[in-house]
Amino acid sequence: MDAITSQSKDFAQWYTDVVTKSGLAAYSNVKGCIYIPPYGTALWENMRAEMDKRIKETGHSNVTFPLLIPESMLQREKDHIAGFAPEVAWVTHGGSEKLAERLCIRPTSEVLFCDYFRDNVHSYRDLPKLYNQWANIVRWEKSTRPFLRTTEFFWQEGHTLHETEAEARAEVLNILNNVYADFAENELAMPVIKGQKTESEKFAGAVDTYCIEAMMADGKALQAGTSHYLGTGFTRAFDISFTGRDGREANPHYTSWGVSTRLIGGIIMVHGDDRGMVMPPRVAPTQVVIVPIQMNKTGVLDAANGLAASLKKIARTHIDVTDNTPGWKYSEWEMKGVPLRIEIGPRDIENGTVVVVRRDNGEKAVVKQSDLGTEIPKMLDAVHNGLYERAKNRMESMIFPVKTYKEMLDIAENKPGFIRAEWCGAGACEDKLKKDSGVTSRAIIDGGTDKCAICGAKAKHLVIWGKSY
Amino acid sequence: MDAITSQSKDFAQWYTDVVTKSGLAAYSNVKGCIYIPPYGTALWENMRAEMDKRIKETGHSNVTFPLLIPESMLQREKDHIAGFAPEVAWVTHGGSEKLAERLCIRPTSEVLFCDYFRDNVHSYRDLPKLYNQWANIVRWEKSTRPFLRTTEFFWQEGHTLHETEAEARAEVLNILNNVYADFAENELAMPVIKGQKTESEKFAGAVDTYCIEAMMADGKALQAGTSHYLGTGFTRAFDISFTGRDGREANPHYTSWGVSTRLIGGIIMVHGDDRGMVMPPRVAPTQVVIVPIQMNKTGVLDAANGLAASLKKIARTHIDVTDNTPGWKYSEWEMKGVPLRIEIGPRDIENGTVVVVRRDNGEKAVVKQSDLGTEIPKMLDAVHNGLYERAKNRMESMIFPVKTYKEMLDIAENKPGFIRAEWCGAGACEDKLKKDSGVTSRAIIDGGTDKCAICGAKAKHLVIWGKSY
Repeated sequence: MDAITSQSKDFAQWYTDVVTKSGLAAYSNVKGCIYIPPYGTALWENMRAEMDKRIKETGHSNVTFPLLIPESMLQREKDHIAGFAPEVAWVTHGGSEKLAERLCIRPTSEVLFCDYFRDNVHSYRDLPKLYNQWANIVRWEKSTRPFLRTTEFFWQEGHTLHETEAEARAEVLNILNNVYADFAENELAMPVIKGQKTESEKFAGAVDTYCIEAMMADGKALQAGTSHYLGTGFTRAFDISFTGRDGREANPHYTSWGVSTRLIGGIIMVHGDDRGMVMPPRVAPTQVVIVPIQMNKTGVLDAANGLAASLKKIARTHIDVTDNTPGWKYSEWEMKGVPLRIEIGPRDIENGTVVVVRRDNGEKAVVKQSDLGTEIPKMLDAVHNGLYERAKNRMESMIFPVKTYKEMLDIAENKPGFIRAEWCGAGACEDKLKKDSGVTSRAIIDGGTDKCAICGAKAKHLVIWGKSY
Repeated sequence: MDAITSQSKDFAQWYTDVVTKSGLAAYSNVKGCIYIPPYGTALWENMRAEMDKRIKETGHSNVTFPLLIPESMLQREKDHIAGFAPEVAWVTHGGSEKLAERLCIRPTSEVLFCDYFRDNVHSYRDLPKLYNQWANIVRWEKSTRPFLRTTEFFWQEGHTLHETEAEARAEVLNILNNVYADFAENELAMPVIKGQKTESEKFAGAVDTYCIEAMMADGKALQAGTSHYLGTGFTRAFDISFTGRDGREANPHYTSWGVSTRLIGGIIMVHGDDRGMVMPPRVAPTQVVIVPIQMNKTGVLDAANGLAASLKKIARTHIDVTDNTPGWKYSEWEMKGVPLRIEIGPRDIENGTVVVVRRDNGEKAVVKQSDLGTEIPKMLDAVHNGLYERAKNRMESMIFPVKTYKEMLDIAENKPGFIRAEWCGAGACEDKLKKDSGVTSRAIIDGGTDKCAICGAKAKHLVIWGKSY
C-alpha cells in the first residue's frame, strides 16, 4: 500500500490519493469522466437514499425525463441558453445518419420539465407540481477533478411549479434549510453556510439563487447545493399558464434545486486526514469493520464471525478475514475511513470484551461484547458529532471579519479561509476583488449596516467571500 | 375521462391508451424518448428495488461507469462494434468545439467494464468480479413505442469476470433462473419461458445468449431479459489477463446480463384489460385505494382517514378525497390498475366493515375492519396468484406444438401465440420461416429428437417460435 501524500505537503495530490486509493473513484479513458467502483457507489447510494427520503417526505414525487434536449427547445429561454451553450455536448449523428436537428445531452433539465408541464398544467387545481429526478448530467468542463468537477456527474434536480411567488419562495427556502442544510449537517456531518448568491454567481435563468457553502480543510469553499427561484421567465417562454382561483390566466412560479456527487468531494475534503478518508457514519458504506487478532488460534474466527453476524443487525458491518496482517488491515480500513474498528483476539474472547477504535480521533475503548448492541449506535453517533464539531470549529476559526480592502487582500493572500465583509452590491467591486486576489463572493448572509469593504460606498449586504472549488 | 380502446378492436391503440391515460408515460418532443411521470417512475422504483435486492443477495456490487464511449474503445471488439455501430448516437462537439475523437452514448457498457477491469484484474485473487450498474442507455431506433422500444431506456447491466468457463456459465444460468425468472414470476406475476437464443438472435459479441420470454395478451412474445456468456473474446481484445492458481497467465471468462424498463411494457400487456392497467401487487405504486362513500356525511371522512393511516403500515395505501363521484373514482383507479379498492360509507362504519374489491377479477368481499391487518396482505397475494395463474394458463393454451412446415405457417397466420417445433439448427430455415410468416425463434428450450419442422433434416433443438415485439 503506497503512502498518501500529506495534506500539508500538497492538498490537491492528497485529495487525488485519497479518492483513488480508498476505492471511491478511478480515472477513466473517457475525457473528464470517472469510474465509481463499489465503495464510491455504495456511499452515493446511501446518500441518495437519505436525500430521497427527505425529498419524498416534503411531498415531492420522482419522475424520469429524457437525457437529450433538441437545440430549439434549449434555446427558448434566452438567459438559460446563453449560460449553458458553451458547455453542452452535442449529438449530431444517429448511427450513420446526420440528424436534422442537433440534440444536446442535458446540462440541467429546466426546459424538459417546462415542455412536460405545458401539457399538464391548466388550472390552479393542477398546482403545485412537486417533482424531482435522479439523473446524470453532462457539462463540457475544461479542467476536471474527480467528484468536484466532472464532465458527467450525478445529481437530483427538483422542479416545482406554484400558483404564487410567495409559495414558490417558501419552497426554495424550505429545500435550502430543511432538506439540504439538514442533510449536510445531520447525514454528512458537514457544517454549511446558508445564503444567497450575488447576481454574478447565480444560475442562468434564475431570479434568485440560494446556496449552501461548506469550508474544506484547506480553507477553500465548496458550493454544496443550490436552490433557485426562477420566477415566471421559463413558464412564460414555454407558454405554461393556468386558470387561477380568480378565473384569470397566469404563469406559474417555478423553482429548481439540486445537489450532486460533488458532495462526495466535499465529504473527503471536510473530514479526510493524512491517513485517508474519514466516512461520516450515517452514510458510510461500512460502519464497523471487525479485524480478528491471531486468527489461526482456535475459536477466534468463530467468535469474530458470530460477532459480525450479530452486529450486522445494527450496523453495516464487514469482517476482514483476508490473510493480511492486523497492522496492514488497520491501515487499509483507516484509509477507507470506516468509522469504527473492532479488534477481537484470544484475550478478548476470554474476557468477553472487544477493543473498539474510533477512526475520527483514534480513541480506543474496551467494550463488553454484551454491551455492543447499545454501544455501537452510541459510538457511531459520537463519531458523527465529533466530525461535525471539528469541522464547525475549524470553519468558525477560519472566517475573518474585515472592514477594509487592505485587510481583505491581506487575508486573501496569507490566511486560508473565508472573509466576512460588507458589500455595496456592485459587480465592479466583485470583479476587482476577483482580479486582485482570486476571491469571489460565496453567499450573502445578511443585510449591510456599514460601508462596502471594497469601494467604501454604503453597504447593502453582508457577504461571505472565499476562494472556491 | 376518455374511454380506452378495447384490446380486441386495436391492441396497439389499447396499449398506447393504457400507457398514457394511466400516467405511466407521456410522449415527449424528443425523438423516441418518453416522459415517465410519478406513477410510472414509482412502479420502476419498486421494480428496481426488488431486483437490486436480488442482485446484491447473489453477491454483486453496484458501480457507476461513464455514459460516453470513445469510438476507438467501442471498436476493440469486432463483432460488438459491428452489431452496435448502426444504432449509436454520436457526440461530435463539446460546446462550440469539434472533438478530436467522436464519443458514442453507451448502447451497452461491455467495453467500459473491460477498460476498467484491465487495470483491476491481475491475479486469480482479484476474481470473480461481480458488478452491476443501473444506467440509462441510448440506441438509435427507427420505430419506437413507449417502454417496448425507446431511444433512451433504463436498465441494470451485470458484468462479471471469472477464472473458468464453468464458473462463468454457472453465473449466466444463476442470473437467468434464480434472479430474472424468479423476479418476473414472483414480483411481476409474469410467467416466462427460459431458454437459449439461436445464433441469429444472440447478443453481438456473445458466445451464448440465454433469455426469458413472456407471452403478451395478444400472443406475441416479449424478450424480457437476457444473460450472456461472452467467453474470452472481450477480455482478449482488451488485454485483460490474470495469473492463475497454476501460475499461468489466462484471460478471464466474461458474462453480462440485463433487464430494462421494457418489463413495464410487458406488465401492461400481460395483465392489462379493457378497463386499463392491472398492477401486479408486489410492485404496484399504490396497492390499496380507499374511496369514501357519502364523504360529506358526518364521520365518514374521519373513519376513512383513520383506516388509511392504519393501512399505510401494511400496504402502499392512497385515499381519494377529491370531490369526484365514487363511480368516477372507481373508473380512475381501475384504469391505473390498483390491486385492491376499499369502499367505506356510513353503513360500513356502523357495521365495522368495509367492501374490498379486487382489480383482477372484480370480486367483492365484505371484510371486518378489525381483520384488515391480516386480510389485506392475503388478498394482495391472492391478486398476485390470480394474475400469475391467468397469464400462465393463457400462455400454455396458446403454445402450439407442430411437426410440419404447413402446420407452422397455418398457425402463424391464424392463431396468435407461440409455436413449439423442432429445428435442425440451420439459419436458412429461420430465414425462410421469417420471410414466409414473420415468425422468429424465441428460445431453444431442449434438444431435438425428431425432424426439423421446416426442412425435414435431423433436428438438433426444440424451439419456441413466435412473432415478437
